[in-house]
Amino acid sequence: MNKNIKIFDSTLRDGAQGEGISFSVSDKLKIVKALDNLGVTYIEAGNPGSNIKDLEFFEKLKSIKLETSKIVAFGSTRRKNISTQEDTNITSLLEAETPTIAIFGKSWDFHVTDIIKTSLNENLKMINDTITFFKEKGKEVIFDAEHFFDGYKSNPDYALKALASAVDAGADAIVLCDTNGGVFPQEIYEITQKVCELFNVEVGIHCHNDCGMAVANSIMGVKAGAVHVQGTYIGFGERCGNANLSTIIPNLQLKMKLSCIPHKQVKNITSTARYISEISNLKLINGMPYVGNGAFAHKGGMHVDGVAKASHSFEHISPEIVGNKRRFLMSEVSGKSTVLPLIKKVDSTISKNSPETQSIIDKLKELEHMGYQYEGAEASFELVIRKLLNKYVSPFKIDSFKTIGEHSIIGGNFTASSIIKVIVDKKEEITAEQGNGPVNALNKSLKKALEVFYPELKEVHLTDYKVRVLDAENATSAKVRVLIESTDGKKTWTTIGVSTDIIEASLLALKDSIEYKLMM
Amino acid sequence: MNKNIKIFDSTLRDGAQGEGISFSVSDKLKIVKALDNLGVTYIEAGNPGSNIKDLEFFEKLKSIKLETSKIVAFGSTRRKNISTQEDTNITSLLEAETPTIAIFGKSWDFHVTDIIKTSLNENLKMINDTITFFKEKGKEVIFDAEHFFDGYKSNPDYALKALASAVDAGADAIVLCDTNGGVFPQEIYEITQKVCELFNVEVGIHCHNDCGMAVANSIMGVKAGAVHVQGTYIGFGERCGNANLSTIIPNLQLKMKLSCIPHKQVKNITSTARYISEISNLKLINGMPYVGNGAFAHKGGMHVDGVAKASHSFEHISPEIVGNKRRFLMSEVSGKSTVLPLIKKVDSTISKNSPETQSIIDKLKELEHMGYQYEGAEASFELVIRKLLNKYVSPFKIDSFKTIGEHSIIGGNFTASSIIKVIVDKKEEITAEQGNGPVNALNKSLKKALEVFYPELKEVHLTDYKVRVLDAENATSAKVRVLIESTDGKKTWTTIGVSTDIIEASLLALKDSIEYKLMM
Repeated sequence: MNKNIKIFDSTLRDGAQGEGISFSVSDKLKIVKALDNLGVTYIEAGNPGSNIKDLEFFEKLKSIKLETSKIVAFGSTRRKNISTQEDTNITSLLEAETPTIAIFGKSWDFHVTDIIKTSLNENLKMINDTITFFKEKGKEVIFDAEHFFDGYKSNPDYALKALASAVDAGADAIVLCDTNGGVFPQEIYEITQKVCELFNVEVGIHCHNDCGMAVANSIMGVKAGAVHVQGTYIGFGERCGNANLSTIIPNLQLKMKLSCIPHKQVKNITSTARYISEISNLKLINGMPYVGNGAFAHKGGMHVDGVAKASHSFEHISPEIVGNKRRFLMSEVSGKSTVLPLIKKVDSTISKNSPETQSIIDKLKELEHMGYQYEGAEASFELVIRKLLNKYVSPFKIDSFKTIGEHSIIGGNFTASSIIKVIVDKKEEITAEQGNGPVNALNKSLKKALEVFYPELKEVHLTDYKVRVLDAENATSAKVRVLIESTDGKKTWTTIGVSTDIIEASLLALKDSIEYKLMM
Repeated sequence: MNKNIKIFDSTLRDGAQGEGISFSVSDKLKIVKALDNLGVTYIEAGNPGSNIKDLEFFEKLKSIKLETSKIVAFGSTRRKNISTQEDTNITSLLEAETPTIAIFGKSWDFHVTDIIKTSLNENLKMINDTITFFKEKGKEVIFDAEHFFDGYKSNPDYALKALASAVDAGADAIVLCDTNGGVFPQEIYEITQKVCELFNVEVGIHCHNDCGMAVANSIMGVKAGAVHVQGTYIGFGERCGNANLSTIIPNLQLKMKLSCIPHKQVKNITSTARYISEISNLKLINGMPYVGNGAFAHKGGMHVDGVAKASHSFEHISPEIVGNKRRFLMSEVSGKSTVLPLIKKVDSTISKNSPETQSIIDKLKELEHMGYQYEGAEASFELVIRKLLNKYVSPFKIDSFKTIGEHSIIGGNFTASSIIKVIVDKKEEITAEQGNGPVNALNKSLKKALEVFYPELKEVHLTDYKVRVLDAENATSAKVRVLIESTDGKKTWTTIGVSTDIIEASLLALKDSIEYKLMM
């Protein structure tokens, strides 16, 4: 693998423009770390000029040391008819103190005259001035030529002039954008090839999925000479989304033998996708290429047969390469091979064909039918296995609890309180707590009661709390799944609870968390 | 539009091999009618040899008169080393009494020798005998060359021999399948072009999405000369799914000016996708090209601004053409132009520069900072605007409420109840309800109390309930955002509530939902 392709991830910028996406600052920091760990070249973190949230985020980023990725701040060319220095968006880009700046500018004449309403010439100056400004400040500058392909198709000379004014100003890379996502693969190929012939600078490609071809268009761009690919990691973005990097990276690295990320990270492509979808609170599309839970799921009888004989008979790659798993639907063969490592962790003498394995599989199927899902909640699953193998008995019992929410006028004061009774070796402890919600009150009362017997629980605190409504169409009577992440400062573990009652679901996850801590 | 492309829909056959898909006979009949109404050329209905459900379905189909589409029965070449007449799968294909039969056979030498384990020569005979048999019965026969592209890449001579034995037997069309979904667009183009040169018969293309390029590969196949495109209507199928016809049809018909369906039906492309996803019980992917609910949703301020000036500035086609709708999403990245249409809906005299507009924007930013997010919760946002403009006062007041959750041993019985007091024109109503969780109990008690004054609320029920934990790292004391979708059978609306207390957050969303209904 000689040739390197620079991967430019815009999950936090273009991705944040996807419907339903709303990242907190801590969400963004988690995603930055995940992408840096995977080893993408650039992480476009946001537009510091656009809103307060992003400013706060860039401040936080200054204190963070990344392994491989460069943080990119994104912004527009200077506004028309003012100097670069006068433009506050430009100055806030500087204040972000990132090594790299991405500047987008117009390259479609129609957008210049009809949307930003300025002269074709002024737009070229805006591009040139802005890039010159940042190059003088010693920044690496990437120029995103917005609507380049539509622009080239309507007025090639002007579209190329826009690129030229960026290159003349010293842009380190020019990125050809199919902003509306309407361009076809063959056009992308021919136009990108033309640009690569004309300019002696790195050429990048930025595609949208409005015709369902963003991945293929990016691939055709690379075939035509692009060495920098922009997208979002699991494909979300404006309208139909951006080119999906979790598909493009393995397409380039495994099929075209071009290097995008450190090869040892390829096996983390799937886990990174699932982590980012979790943080984004978007269910990962089941059939998403390479990373989806169903990407290597075989259902048709002949397919299952074929894969059993030779996996490449119905698989274009082996799922393990990208850290995904093969599944045979409606067949426990898959179940066993997935669960066995976890069982062996508890009892290494148990084999694939031991009766215990089958009974655990059956229990797992039953629990999954109830709405449990142990991927990402291994602590709870380990407890299930230990209990089934009679290797664990809970040292405490929650005898009963009661939560009360009392509210005066909406928005006014309210109190939530919880009364709980636990039993440890026949000793009872009854106590109560208040909190800013019933779940919070319950958590506090449960810990307060158990700390009487287990002072070590004082070290434990919760670091994450997630709720997913399962059968949403049943509205407020739907089942909810609660995932709780706990830590004692040394170890971190995740537990799960499912119920139609969010309070009970939370208690089940809290109980597992405490049992797991006491077991260690 | 001279050239016609034949669309071959396999939703009921290859699509049924997708994870989570299980059609009843009546589901299948509904989908057949929907596809016939849209006007696809072929509807592959299933494999009559494979299971009883399909046999019953083909029986029912005999009594149904279709407008435009032809029903296709799907099956394999005869089994090795027996005569065609002896093969019960072949005879059951005849019993289906369809005008058209699709026969799949092996064209990858490795599959012949290692999977079905017969001689390369016997496989060619199997193809030839089977097609000859059905041609003698007067059927239209389509030959699906399974794994053709992988086969061609490993042994081009043999792959072409497989096609030749189908053509010699009188096949009406030969379909080149990328069964594993691992082939790239340029390869598809070159190999399909080669086949079109060699054979004087209709050539078709059948792609899978394992590299995220099924749509582009199908398009490249057509560019190379294919005149028949196979896929599933909304893309589901084995593993990562089949080529998505709801994307391919508009790509071909609107962009490449090739005729796939009657032009007057193009406006039904979106409704057909939503209907099929309903019947399949799969949520349509929000960003699905052309047909997704978010396919023309604009969020970024500059995008919204641009579309307001000229829709093609950020849309590759007008959504109405395919029967979809443009949407402007509320968010901190959106500006005045997003909010203005909603404000004008309430008061048409207000303009972009009216002070009211700015104060609404400020309120929006403040609410979003608190954790509100109005994209997809337009009903709540309309209430915010009306209240700010003093155009709406809630007709009822929730004076107070109390929720009680009482639980005995975990997993055992528990009761959740709610007591509520509402006031309408100085009249009080106090009532209580029980539910399978505190939110459910609260919802029931609130409706029960208000239905005394507003019987029309009996029509309202909730169709969706979503919970998102905002600052998850604050664990059980985190803020939660609740989204509730309600319907009265005619209209559907979504409302939002945010609080650290999930019960209060739910109540705020429920209150908005009821206020919105009463306002209409």
